[in-house]
Amino acid sequence: MIEEVVKQWHAHMRGELKNGLDILLADDCVFYSPIVFTPQVGKEITKMYLMAAGQTLPGDKKDDASEKKDSSGKFRYTKEVMSGNTAVLEFETTVEGKYANGVDIITCNDEGKIVEFRVMFRPLQAINAVHRQMGAMLEKMKPE
Amino acid sequence: MIEEVVKQWHAHMRGELKNGLDILLADDCVFYSPIVFTPQVGKEITKMYLMAAGQTLPGDKKDDASEKKDSSGKFRYTKEVMSGNTAVLEFETTVEGKYANGVDIITCNDEGKIVEFRVMFRPLQAINAVHRQMGAMLEKMKPE
Repeated sequence: MIEEVVKQWHAHMRGELKNGLDILLADDCVFYSPIVFTPQVGKEITKMYLMAAGQTLPGDKKDDASEKKDSSGKFRYTKEVMSGNTAVLEFETTVEGKYANGVDIITCNDEGKIVEFRVMFRPLQAINAVHRQMGAMLEKMKPE
Repeated sequence: MIEEVVKQWHAHMRGELKNGLDILLADDCVFYSPIVFTPQVGKEITKMYLMAAGQTLPGDKKDDASEKKDSSGKFRYTKEVMSGNTAVLEFETTVEGKYANGVDIITCNDEGKIVEFRVMFRPLQAINAVHRQMGAMLEKMKPE
């Protein structure tokens, strides 16, 4: 079951799954932030966090990248480990020009909907950059 | 292969595998710290980090724990995902009395020796606590 969810997740990440998060997330999905202790409960708030992450973590944009940088500044998955109803997707990207290494830990229910989405980062300077960038992005996304 | 390594790892964590790290780690093992960007290359330095982690992360000791606390303050693995030569072990513990949630991402070679050990934490306050505690522990462990 989780294999199909991960396939859909990748399609969503490539922009090829219309309303991807609406399709993928269960109504009672819980998001565990890399920064904040308190679990974020529910589909809407999980969507907001994942959309903020999507804006914050894509890595160096073309016009930021110096000539010397290769494509390694861009967000990319580096490991994929799955069993039962859980997948761990390790990734690398850059945030504020700093190397960031993280994991998405995704758990689905028997209907193939994501019920838990957990994110962690290393090293420390990446976490501090994610903290700043995600904070600013979530502030922008708040309803007026 | 990774299943056997994880079995040995748990035996090591329970103190039931004599010279556990010597047996488990490959000579060219690389440790990716939750704090520091630079990979730590080699069996000896990986051992040092894992021993420091073992001292720092066991969670609340009996005499720290208030009556109200249950056993949840102690280090425990909460998820185990394995495939191919990689295992992801998610854990919870407490550091400086704060909840800490992390992953050990362990990769082994065809001889069943660990060649890569990667650690990440959430949330931010746990990472800051790990930073302080691991730093102090590594300082203590340095050869004079």
